[in-house]
Amino acid sequence: MQMTGLLWTQDDMARIRDHADTPSQLGVTLGELTAEVEAAMAAGVVVPGQGEPGSFEHNTHKQNAKLIEHAALMGRVANNRAYLELARELLLAYAAEYGDMPYQVARNTNPPGKLFHQILNEHMWLLGAALGYSLLREDLGDDDRARIESGLFEPMLDMFTVTYAHDFDRIHNHGLWAVAAVGICGLVIGQTRYVDQAIFGNAGDGHTGGFLAQIDNLFSPDGYYVEGPYYHRFAVHPLCLFAEALALHRPKLNIYERSSRRIGRSIRALLATAYPDGTFPALNDASRTMGVDDEGVRVALAVHLGRYGAEPEVVAMAARQNGTWVHRFGERVAAALEGAPASCSIPSALFADGSGGQAHLKQGEGARRHHLVVAAGQHGMGHGHFDQLGLSFFSGGRERLTEYGFCRWVNVEPKFGGRYLAENEGYAKQSVAHNLVVVDQASQHRGDHQLADRCHGRIERFIDRYEVDGLSAVSAMTDDAYPEVELRRHCILLTLEPCAPPLLIDVVEARGSARHCYDYVFNFSGQVIRWWGGFSARESLEVLGEAHGYQHLWVVGEQQALAGEPSTHAMTWLDGDRFTTWHQCSEQSAVAMQLLVGANDPEHNLRHEKKVMTRVHSETNLFVNVFEQHGHFDEASETCLNARPELRHVDVTRSPAAKIEVTLHFAQRSETLTIDPEALSGDDFVSLAGRES
Amino acid sequence: MQMTGLLWTQDDMARIRDHADTPSQLGVTLGELTAEVEAAMAAGVVVPGQGEPGSFEHNTHKQNAKLIEHAALMGRVANNRAYLELARELLLAYAAEYGDMPYQVARNTNPPGKLFHQILNEHMWLLGAALGYSLLREDLGDDDRARIESGLFEPMLDMFTVTYAHDFDRIHNHGLWAVAAVGICGLVIGQTRYVDQAIFGNAGDGHTGGFLAQIDNLFSPDGYYVEGPYYHRFAVHPLCLFAEALALHRPKLNIYERSSRRIGRSIRALLATAYPDGTFPALNDASRTMGVDDEGVRVALAVHLGRYGAEPEVVAMAARQNGTWVHRFGERVAAALEGAPASCSIPSALFADGSGGQAHLKQGEGARRHHLVVAAGQHGMGHGHFDQLGLSFFSGGRERLTEYGFCRWVNVEPKFGGRYLAENEGYAKQSVAHNLVVVDQASQHRGDHQLADRCHGRIERFIDRYEVDGLSAVSAMTDDAYPEVELRRHCILLTLEPCAPPLLIDVVEARGSARHCYDYVFNFSGQVIRWWGGFSARESLEVLGEAHGYQHLWVVGEQQALAGEPSTHAMTWLDGDRFTTWHQCSEQSAVAMQLLVGANDPEHNLRHEKKVMTRVHSETNLFVNVFEQHGHFDEASETCLNARPELRHVDVTRSPAAKIEVTLHFAQRSETLTIDPEALSGDDFVSLAGRES
Repeated sequence: MQMTGLLWTQDDMARIRDHADTPSQLGVTLGELTAEVEAAMAAGVVVPGQGEPGSFEHNTHKQNAKLIEHAALMGRVANNRAYLELARELLLAYAAEYGDMPYQVARNTNPPGKLFHQILNEHMWLLGAALGYSLLREDLGDDDRARIESGLFEPMLDMFTVTYAHDFDRIHNHGLWAVAAVGICGLVIGQTRYVDQAIFGNAGDGHTGGFLAQIDNLFSPDGYYVEGPYYHRFAVHPLCLFAEALALHRPKLNIYERSSRRIGRSIRALLATAYPDGTFPALNDASRTMGVDDEGVRVALAVHLGRYGAEPEVVAMAARQNGTWVHRFGERVAAALEGAPASCSIPSALFADGSGGQAHLKQGEGARRHHLVVAAGQHGMGHGHFDQLGLSFFSGGRERLTEYGFCRWVNVEPKFGGRYLAENEGYAKQSVAHNLVVVDQASQHRGDHQLADRCHGRIERFIDRYEVDGLSAVSAMTDDAYPEVELRRHCILLTLEPCAPPLLIDVVEARGSARHCYDYVFNFSGQVIRWWGGFSARESLEVLGEAHGYQHLWVVGEQQALAGEPSTHAMTWLDGDRFTTWHQCSEQSAVAMQLLVGANDPEHNLRHEKKVMTRVHSETNLFVNVFEQHGHFDEASETCLNARPELRHVDVTRSPAAKIEVTLHFAQRSETLTIDPEALSGDDFVSLAGRES
Repeated sequence: MQMTGLLWTQDDMARIRDHADTPSQLGVTLGELTAEVEAAMAAGVVVPGQGEPGSFEHNTHKQNAKLIEHAALMGRVANNRAYLELARELLLAYAAEYGDMPYQVARNTNPPGKLFHQILNEHMWLLGAALGYSLLREDLGDDDRARIESGLFEPMLDMFTVTYAHDFDRIHNHGLWAVAAVGICGLVIGQTRYVDQAIFGNAGDGHTGGFLAQIDNLFSPDGYYVEGPYYHRFAVHPLCLFAEALALHRPKLNIYERSSRRIGRSIRALLATAYPDGTFPALNDASRTMGVDDEGVRVALAVHLGRYGAEPEVVAMAARQNGTWVHRFGERVAAALEGAPASCSIPSALFADGSGGQAHLKQGEGARRHHLVVAAGQHGMGHGHFDQLGLSFFSGGRERLTEYGFCRWVNVEPKFGGRYLAENEGYAKQSVAHNLVVVDQASQHRGDHQLADRCHGRIERFIDRYEVDGLSAVSAMTDDAYPEVELRRHCILLTLEPCAPPLLIDVVEARGSARHCYDYVFNFSGQVIRWWGGFSARESLEVLGEAHGYQHLWVVGEQQALAGEPSTHAMTWLDGDRFTTWHQCSEQSAVAMQLLVGANDPEHNLRHEKKVMTRVHSETNLFVNVFEQHGHFDEASETCLNARPELRHVDVTRSPAAKIEVTLHFAQRSETLTIDPEALSGDDFVSLAGRES
């Protein structure tokens, strides 16, 4: 096997070359990289000085690391000397500047680099540049090698492993980038001590730090990543690159087998979280548009195909990517897609995170299928949101019960340099920003990250009988989010005539030892069509509360309970081409409010999004909610069907044995769903009985 | 020429058949119609009773008229007897029911039909059914013919021409549907008196009513239609169908030559209003998604190609359609598209409407090109908005300065039966809903449609030097929208380094004989990035005013003038992947407010949209605004460039000779634009001089 650079063989390059100018995913990426490199050739080498986050300088340094990698890679794929020369010139230009460059000023808790204000970016820079350099090195003269290695790479390695040694062993996504950058660069320049330090950590024991410790500890045995999919996709990128480098150059480590094949589990766990359109649910700090087409996921998915196999659900996610890794495993992705079925059903998934867990209920096929996420696990460290038992729901091509995501415009310089905004703590992380029940108008764990990191929810039941009777369900609980309050949530996806998409039945039991304020909250997009049974709009919009995110909410209006107890509410909204009706039956009398996000936001850092809250004051309450999607509206063609819900109303009774009976009344018949929280087996905990009426 | 039905020959059918199962636009439509007819075959004939607007019954009747036409047409195209039989069965089922069916209850100012609550729908029904019947008639026995013609068509014709004779001559889009339906049905069943009445009107003179009078009077000599593009596309549908029927069956009328080829002018005028993505600007009552893919526009565009020619800009709009008319002219469309260039530049256009006019400035190529609309013409009858000198702007694939459109969800039954909502009068039509200057917080013409219909603005200058020096401009005025106030607007699109998309320079001169309140208003979508120079957010949102649409606006916050006089304001927002910065320089000291639509809306009939208003109290004022688009943001890939504007600030001075000098200050240089409202020729009225700084 004749290597060309760290991760490619000469044979690989030939096979990759065959995809040039073809419409395969690999061909598309080759075209894009060629265009990028050609544009850079036309513009010439630009190595600017130091700049602010999001500035021209910052952006150009980031692009240059990519450019070194891509120019070198396309130089080898296309046998183009000019491309290789561009990569060399860039490396030499950085080597000439780097030594004398002062450290940047730190802008957050990260230590500063020289090119960037946080060392993380410098790690990423080195990783890309080292991969590019690996493709040039054999052709370079000693003088060039010395200038690049001692002028650029060695000082960086020294900074990362000595100056910032205290940070090198941190089990964290930043730590993973650090060890991957150091390890890969060490392999490329043949400096074994850096490679060993990267693999085994500062202490050399493989447990307290280094890549092996990261694999063992950063992901749960199921592959779950505590910070959420947005950071998971960021972590799998160095994970897979360094793993592949070690598989080729330190094969005795058997890296892909490590910890019961933890790397493969982690890739599958990440892909399983993705919505049908390929975007990731915005769990914890996350953008609402990040998805499987991210570069890190391209690499991870290709590695999975190359090293673990081409499961249909993995290949289905590849179909949501617009390109792939330029590598022999990317070639595998392109090949797998050629033979893949147009659509396949994706299994539901439950991830244990070591203590709590995260459930993904899935029904249907194709991009318009249904995906419910219920989180009841670990908090997510500094990026965690206070959203135990939070829920989000995607169906018919859109997120119907929405996550707000983070409050940040990444790399948008006038928005606080693209960093996290104050409203991220003020609103986005707070419990009230999520789809759940807030107790006493306060966030879970008092909004204290350290406390929250020590606690977790539990998934108590998880069943997937979609193929049998159209029913999938998950039951989760937390008893430590609020002192002396137990919250239990039962979520059921039910495909049931006469409803076309599945009903989402969402039952929340709140049980306190004293009287509390319980706020059932959900978030949605689109236009309210009607509150059934009346609505009082406020003329002026007042702020709802004073803290824990409530200070950022305006009250648009309210609907009093339609009856006594149980009290009911119903509202239909239109989002895109589909209507959704929310039906609620609350054991205690509830007031429903329509809210708007955006109060106390002088810097316009919040999006004006809509939400509904129903409020109850009592010791215990049972909120039974049914979200029914129905009908179709196409504004451009002015066609509309079934703008009214099929479900007429919802009843709830509690049997003496604490069973919850939810009756769904349709025009022609009714259907009773019995939830038995005491049932010992998962399968008994929900049952269904229909009746003509 | 052997006809098959009213509008097709046997040869046509053969040529159309060749497109089946091909990806041409005609092939796509054939596939869709086949699927529609096959689905109806599987479901069987359903002829329901009477229902509410938007109900199942209402929708089914509408679909059945289409189905009669499409089943008959596809029966002939595909030589499928079963399809023809389906069309026959439907016609016979309606013929059996129609006679005894009572009249519906009227729901608006339209007289009621039997199948539908407004006669307009019944006209549309007859037109489709008669076209379908024309394809069956030769094969039917005398008994079937008699049942259909005397049981269904004759009663309808009698209702339209006798019962509602008083409505038949109305020069209006409804009148056009009436004469087209009656004339086409008359031709199909060979009843000359109906055909003559449809062509020449009740009086038979060809002037006071009928199709010829509609052609002469409904559209201006330039083809402009006063109700706006949304209703224009609705009016061209019967216009073109009946014209084509007459061209084939009453060739001596030379219908396509009538009134200096008025039909062709009208089609071109409609197509010229369309934005680069094919949607129509929402001028007057209109949805924001209606576009050239509407069925009426498909027919009109095909007729243009068949009868008037395949101008590049007409073919370019065909490329925004997803299908075409199943007719030999649709075959022409498919053929024209095969040879068409991927992109072409579309000329700017000015339409005189008989008194005022409407300007469409266009720059660039492709779907991301730029299109500015300035309206200064007739009011638009009952569908008119009080928006003299109103402006809308599309660029980079989106409307950047937005029209609100109508307040209506067509066919969404729970929204007042899909009809116009009270907030259409309350907000959408009012001046403050548009992009213009409102005087004394009141709508133009006091919000009185009859008064407005008697007035109009004027386009005073119109120049398109885009190919010469990157400058297009229009100047418009009104002196009757408000008593003793003259408003003049100069809009300039200027492609100018270092800005990538053209700058929109918008100068409004307000001149009153006494002190007035002048509110400069614009509407936008997306997220405010920053108000440059500070902003005071309100904690509670109060309503801005009490009437003329102001009662539906909340004040989110305000920015005091950044300097004395002239006072300046600047705000950057992000919409999709692009930033826009609004720079304003006001001669008199102004306060800027950010507003939110949605106050006093208990039924949720308004969309929560954003707007900005700057307010001045003075006798006269000059508002100079520059809208600068800049940068690029891709949230999913987290890349951002040029989030800050290139333009540093804007100055304005008035020379003794009343010339307006607007100076644009960039980092490296400045550019002075001189507007001379007194200049006699269009070309002198704007000039440009740059200076390094």
